[in-house]
Amino acid sequence: MRETAPLDFWFDYSSPYSYLLAEQIEALASRFGRRVRWRPILLGPVFQATGSAPLTMQYPPKAAYALRDFARSARFLGLPYRQPDNFPQATQYAARATYWLQENAADRATPFALDCFRALFVHNADLSALPTVLEIAAKHGVDREILAAAVQGQALKSRLRAACEEALILGVFGAPYVLVDGEAFFGADRLPQLERWLESGGF
Amino acid sequence: MRETAPLDFWFDYSSPYSYLLAEQIEALASRFGRRVRWRPILLGPVFQATGSAPLTMQYPPKAAYALRDFARSARFLGLPYRQPDNFPQATQYAARATYWLQENAADRATPFALDCFRALFVHNADLSALPTVLEIAAKHGVDREILAAAVQGQALKSRLRAACEEALILGVFGAPYVLVDGEAFFGADRLPQLERWLESGGF
Repeated sequence: MRETAPLDFWFDYSSPYSYLLAEQIEALASRFGRRVRWRPILLGPVFQATGSAPLTMQYPPKAAYALRDFARSARFLGLPYRQPDNFPQATQYAARATYWLQENAADRATPFALDCFRALFVHNADLSALPTVLEIAAKHGVDREILAAAVQGQALKSRLRAACEEALILGVFGAPYVLVDGEAFFGADRLPQLERWLESGGF
Repeated sequence: MRETAPLDFWFDYSSPYSYLLAEQIEALASRFGRRVRWRPILLGPVFQATGSAPLTMQYPPKAAYALRDFARSARFLGLPYRQPDNFPQATQYAARATYWLQENAADRATPFALDCFRALFVHNADLSALPTVLEIAAKHGVDREILAAAVQGQALKSRLRAACEEALILGVFGAPYVLVDGEAFFGADRLPQLERWLESGGF
């Protein structure tokens, strides 16, 4: 199989539609011999730049629709979903931990990322709390103390900040946002178009 | 076949995603023995209420993505699309004329509506100009002078204003927005979910 560029998957752990896409993107990419680069960011700086806000904090009828659509879209895809009691959540620990695993335990980074999403959107966990993130990482064999120090250290803070800045430069205006071969796909509902794009090399 | 409620299809003629849904909704509804009530509104008052704006007037990277996504979504669906040179457009004449046809030439109202969409999104017409709307109506056998007087008269102005107010009361926050049996579907990309909803009576 010829060498192909990876899919860049930009997301915030607190984004329900990012969770829905996260559950599908590895299977899709592998069908086309592609890798996925998981690029967690924080939507806070993105919303500041775009003048937007989390869906559930927008115009009340739109917020109410969003809550209904999160759950309905999950049922449509056959995925479990439970609206977190605490929502949206600050996900900097999960994001930084993801980058740490990518560099220090690469084979466990994606299973860890999926477990973070499931903790929040299936098991109603408080993913904003550092112990929750450490607990998930520990299940994947990561030492809690080493990770705790790392995600509170300057290097990973800078790493995450740089990722957010890179996302803004690339034009990421929300999540999930997939970039492949220069083409952008925004939203879990663009997966069918992404699939056809990968099949046909553009359409 | 048992009596079923119609699909309420709320839209603005200036909305590209409304055009994409308009081209599909009658075939979908008829498969399930449903009628479609075409409910043109103006998104201006909706955006005022929601604090939003047309996609192409938002944060530049989001606007650029929207332009690309309009055309790509059309190709994905096998529908013709040409971004109008003048966009967005004021569509009050087309909207009022639709309500006039629904009351005075009911069998031609939906073909007229589809032709308005195609004039704007395929043939780059200036749908904001009254003569364009009259020309389209004339092709469907409507007298230009009668329609010209009607769409500039108080009754149809009030009719359209009432439709916009009703939409806001129902929670419509954008277009296209389909309401069926109390369930809302926002966006042309929710058509697969709408389809499953009609198939299964909810999911």
